[in-house]
Amino acid sequence: MKLLFIVLDGLGDRPIPEFEGKTPLEYANTPNMDKFASLGINGLLDVIAPGVTPGSDTAHLALFGVDPYEYYTGRGPFEAAGIGLEVKEGDIAFRTNFATIDEKGIIKDRRAGRIKEGTDKLAELFSGMEIDGIQIILEAGTEHRAALVLRGEGLSQNVSENDPHVEGKEPLKFIPLDDSPEAQKTSRVLTTLAMKAENLLSNADLNKERIENELLPANYLLIRGAGKVPKVPNFEEEYCLETACIAGGGLYKGVGRMLGMHIIEDSMLTGGTNTDLKHKFELANKTLQNYDFVFVHVKGTDNLSHDGKPKEKKEFIEKVDKELSQFLPENYKDDLVIMITGDHSSPCSFKDHSADPVPIIIYSPDCRRDDVMKFGESYAAKGYLGHILGKHIMNIALNEMRLVHKFGA
Amino acid sequence: MKLLFIVLDGLGDRPIPEFEGKTPLEYANTPNMDKFASLGINGLLDVIAPGVTPGSDTAHLALFGVDPYEYYTGRGPFEAAGIGLEVKEGDIAFRTNFATIDEKGIIKDRRAGRIKEGTDKLAELFSGMEIDGIQIILEAGTEHRAALVLRGEGLSQNVSENDPHVEGKEPLKFIPLDDSPEAQKTSRVLTTLAMKAENLLSNADLNKERIENELLPANYLLIRGAGKVPKVPNFEEEYCLETACIAGGGLYKGVGRMLGMHIIEDSMLTGGTNTDLKHKFELANKTLQNYDFVFVHVKGTDNLSHDGKPKEKKEFIEKVDKELSQFLPENYKDDLVIMITGDHSSPCSFKDHSADPVPIIIYSPDCRRDDVMKFGESYAAKGYLGHILGKHIMNIALNEMRLVHKFGA
Repeated sequence: MKLLFIVLDGLGDRPIPEFEGKTPLEYANTPNMDKFASLGINGLLDVIAPGVTPGSDTAHLALFGVDPYEYYTGRGPFEAAGIGLEVKEGDIAFRTNFATIDEKGIIKDRRAGRIKEGTDKLAELFSGMEIDGIQIILEAGTEHRAALVLRGEGLSQNVSENDPHVEGKEPLKFIPLDDSPEAQKTSRVLTTLAMKAENLLSNADLNKERIENELLPANYLLIRGAGKVPKVPNFEEEYCLETACIAGGGLYKGVGRMLGMHIIEDSMLTGGTNTDLKHKFELANKTLQNYDFVFVHVKGTDNLSHDGKPKEKKEFIEKVDKELSQFLPENYKDDLVIMITGDHSSPCSFKDHSADPVPIIIYSPDCRRDDVMKFGESYAAKGYLGHILGKHIMNIALNEMRLVHKFGA
Repeated sequence: MKLLFIVLDGLGDRPIPEFEGKTPLEYANTPNMDKFASLGINGLLDVIAPGVTPGSDTAHLALFGVDPYEYYTGRGPFEAAGIGLEVKEGDIAFRTNFATIDEKGIIKDRRAGRIKEGTDKLAELFSGMEIDGIQIILEAGTEHRAALVLRGEGLSQNVSENDPHVEGKEPLKFIPLDDSPEAQKTSRVLTTLAMKAENLLSNADLNKERIENELLPANYLLIRGAGKVPKVPNFEEEYCLETACIAGGGLYKGVGRMLGMHIIEDSMLTGGTNTDLKHKFELANKTLQNYDFVFVHVKGTDNLSHDGKPKEKKEFIEKVDKELSQFLPENYKDDLVIMITGDHSSPCSFKDHSADPVPIIIYSPDCRRDDVMKFGESYAAKGYLGHILGKHIMNIALNEMRLVHKFGA
């Protein structure tokens, strides 16, 4: 048996008056998801716990059975892993922006004009850098994004960030957040690094060219999201499943990589609303031939929620639905378990994550069934699964795959 | 108020196509259980946790409110207690088979031709045996089954078994599973014991007679399921209930005995599909006169599931149902709480345990009621109890008995 796990980011929502009081998912025309809902078992999922609003990072840990209260240390490690950095247990990892600072030391643009190209060249300038015996590793991501890793002895994640999160202000000072020598040292290293970086980047050829071309130079590093890289359980070893991760967003690839999944790299996976969903799900279908478990992450639903666009969210859900017909029982071998849910709710009215539970479908060819006929928040509430927690769903899916690990005899 | 707790082993199942997509329980004609379902409260029970497949041993611990993650060390202690051995905290206990080994040292029959009589005489040969300062206690059970206890200082449960689990092979060597001197010593004691046992048993009169009568001799001990006897909570002290256990299977009597229940010994309780259900439930009814709480274990449902026989499972459930009419409100004093459930699901299609939750009815004369009118997995899913955990049900039953232990003031 194989498992296809589809996560629609920020799927859950709240009643929209223009949708007859239905949510975007409930209002959407989703014949394929509805088929899975009617053939499968349904429920509401509290990804972390009732009333707890998950971040994207903690949510995905929980969905994969990894307790975020035990293993989550900050977003940095997952972003770094997502960019492809081989983080090691004990590294301190950070999310980083290439930014623009002016001669007076004021942040002019937190994203250096959303610089598209050349940041890999800028990151190379840091190659081999050491400060105070600490190895500095900078790796460019998409656009202005980069990941920073400090590797060495005596470091701590308890340091503040230098990102003021608004433009027109000076960068903040790094401050140790506790009295430990480790936090002091980390903050010192970061302070030196930020100065060195400003110097190195200001003199970089690329930035001289950008100024000539009236583009904002990427001459500063804004560093945030410190996290000590945790030793997370290895997903493949834990569940004995060859696992593939299909995602556009760096964070989701990062979670997958840190848990030991095989990351399917494909430049057509954008992690946005412009992603080619047809391509993505065909890729998932192909990948299922070689893996026991394929995780597909779709980000667009969350982006549209953050923008407060219920109509577009509904339409995006319908586009996803269209691509799912290839997995219907009549079009697929009788060996597929499908799990469809969200990592959290993002009501369009909130324009942000919320703690509302998300609907979940778990379908297998011979699962018990309930009366739920359509995928949706209020329908799922009446399903056979009742309310379940994120940490339970992998075990429930494994049971449907008949990969039973009996506890006791 | 009294409590009758009926556990139908492996009760839960999955949709059977020939049963119009119903489970054996749903398809069965069960007017008495349905009466309790309609007068009581219903729900789905995750005995250990959602998605976790229980063993029979861990399941029963959980049903009695004892956390198996804290107290379960292996099946040996419960089997030994079930046979009637007075195990002590710290003993290392094992499940043991009398088996047949040939001159070449090959296991010819793992159950010595399912030897019926005389194993108590064989066990007596070990009376008073000591190896390396360790007391050897062997007690015969039903048929080929026996329990072995090692009692003394410096022992460990971390040893492998010598049972190859197939015939035509040599017994396995006992291997210490960690580097501790305790595991080394235990493995040494077991190795010596197996040699001594082969010698003792081969020369036993009973086995000479068996060979003369062309029966397989019980000339070897296959030893498995090591577990250090844990200090489990005493059920009667914990809940202040005089408790009786009515079960055929040794394991269930063992769990009961270890928790401090009074074991009703009766040779008509077979722990199989051939058990006299009329006798069993009449015994339960009689026992209710003298005890506050009577636990009745019925094994046949699980046996038929392991054999993949849904029709026979359905019919067996119907036979159980027939015997329950004596406990209906109209036939009983108004002082009885009844709880009916399974210890785990065993879908006939799996022929093994699964993690699917089991339906549960809790009836008391004045409990709240729900709309559920029939006992069954999909009906119970709509009940008032929702999804509950094994560890909660004793407390819920005590509440129905009005034995309220207020937490706080």
